[in-house]
Amino acid sequence: MYKIDIDKVKIFEVCPRDGLQNIKEFIKTDQKIRLVNMLTDAGCEAIEVTSFVHPKWVPQLADAAEVLSSITMNPNIVYNALIPNIKGLERAIASGLKEVVTIMSASEAHNKKNLNMSIADSLAQMKEINDVARVHGIRVRSYIATSFGCPMQGKIAPEYVAEIAAELERIGSYEISLGDTTGMSEPVLSYKVVKAVKRTLSKSRLAVHFHRSGGIEFANILASLQAGVDVIDSAVGGLGGCPYAPGAKGNIATEVLVEMLDRMGIETGIDLAKIQKAAEYAKSLDPYASCVEGGSDE
Amino acid sequence: MYKIDIDKVKIFEVCPRDGLQNIKEFIKTDQKIRLVNMLTDAGCEAIEVTSFVHPKWVPQLADAAEVLSSITMNPNIVYNALIPNIKGLERAIASGLKEVVTIMSASEAHNKKNLNMSIADSLAQMKEINDVARVHGIRVRSYIATSFGCPMQGKIAPEYVAEIAAELERIGSYEISLGDTTGMSEPVLSYKVVKAVKRTLSKSRLAVHFHRSGGIEFANILASLQAGVDVIDSAVGGLGGCPYAPGAKGNIATEVLVEMLDRMGIETGIDLAKIQKAAEYAKSLDPYASCVEGGSDE
Repeated sequence: MYKIDIDKVKIFEVCPRDGLQNIKEFIKTDQKIRLVNMLTDAGCEAIEVTSFVHPKWVPQLADAAEVLSSITMNPNIVYNALIPNIKGLERAIASGLKEVVTIMSASEAHNKKNLNMSIADSLAQMKEINDVARVHGIRVRSYIATSFGCPMQGKIAPEYVAEIAAELERIGSYEISLGDTTGMSEPVLSYKVVKAVKRTLSKSRLAVHFHRSGGIEFANILASLQAGVDVIDSAVGGLGGCPYAPGAKGNIATEVLVEMLDRMGIETGIDLAKIQKAAEYAKSLDPYASCVEGGSDE
Repeated sequence: MYKIDIDKVKIFEVCPRDGLQNIKEFIKTDQKIRLVNMLTDAGCEAIEVTSFVHPKWVPQLADAAEVLSSITMNPNIVYNALIPNIKGLERAIASGLKEVVTIMSASEAHNKKNLNMSIADSLAQMKEINDVARVHGIRVRSYIATSFGCPMQGKIAPEYVAEIAAELERIGSYEISLGDTTGMSEPVLSYKVVKAVKRTLSKSRLAVHFHRSGGIEFANILASLQAGVDVIDSAVGGLGGCPYAPGAKGNIATEVLVEMLDRMGIETGIDLAKIQKAAEYAKSLDPYASCVEGGSDE
């Protein structure tokens, strides 16, 4: 009989970082703090609060340290920040974070464009980051962007994604998140990639990070659950679209994900009504908020 | 290995009827004709063109006969209309249609509210319709609304939906479409209901008719494909929401469905670019068109 062998999903909430970073109009620090506090209150298990990328590149998140020092932290919740390099890690260490997030791509072309280096160089840099983080007792989570296809390079072999994931596990990343950066995947491919990566990992947890593609993203989520994934990245309000990059749609909406998992009897620890309120608030901060529907009203 | 055992899906396009019927502002007959012609040109296999419900109840479709006599029909495409009763069937016969669509509900409460009769009375009326249609060489397709839950009555047993479907097959409906009328389903339930109904049918084809619920509908579509469904109802532009009934969200968007099936290598016979154009046109006709995203741009 048809059954999803997952009882509990960890939702990794990315709105404060991935959702807000591309918004041109500066969102007040107080508003960011309020958003994170609402997410904490809704029961999110892990929140990507901000990024220690140089403010020149992401001016929206220039207030990273202030946000991190002002939010009300719940000791049961993991708060983290994206770091692009060792310098970012140093700022994260100074802020007292216990977890950081790194990013690279499974596509040479995308890695070059996005990070201005080869995949090999990215992995070498990540090793350095992991080594320093370990000394400071900081966990590292790693994104592999374009894991399901690249708008520049086309198809990406699932086995190649698995190789990168295995290397990230070897250098110490405790959780690896496979990004469908521009919403290109479909369910059978999603299943294949997840399975290929899962086979190579022995201890690191595996997450999926889909972007919106008209609803197809939820078929990809279902296929990922069927492949054994139990960590899913999402952003309240579905934020994360970028008006300057038409290919980059927003993230999957946390409040819809929670509604689907609730209906399926899969635990998330998140309060649906509260996360819907956080989503409304997040959308009110985003002048480009694409219209993301909530689930049904029944 | 993970595999969807479906090579080809028949998409049953419902926009001209289910998508337009609730729009208050009258859409010009010429515009309706243009929409149906665009759908024909895009390669749709089956189009629900209009409805022979009394104009008092659905004034938007008062021009049913005129639309049907003016569209450019392709002999390879099935055109049909919803009929509520024998009177509707008579109008359909007069219009020369070769297929009609009937509707009833799997929920007594919903059937009573929507059709003002019991399920038993609906089935008796359907038998009469099927008998008359058969004499005129007209095929009958039948909807079972609220097959995945009812906002008034709550859960609906899959076995009960299967009983109704079996009865509809017995009285002659060649295709049965299970409606998730208010977008309440989830993948495991969708699979269960589809499987339960499929087991009872020996010759009638089975379709699913999901409404939008923030993206969850595509997880339901995937589960239905996995359960062996190969007919899916959808509406270009995702039309069908009703500003006066907050629970009634729009239909799943045909252009997104086609994109997902294209990516999965499942044939639909529909040209993606042309159906996207038809979707744009449909949305331009609907002042309440919820924002429905297309798929990615890659």
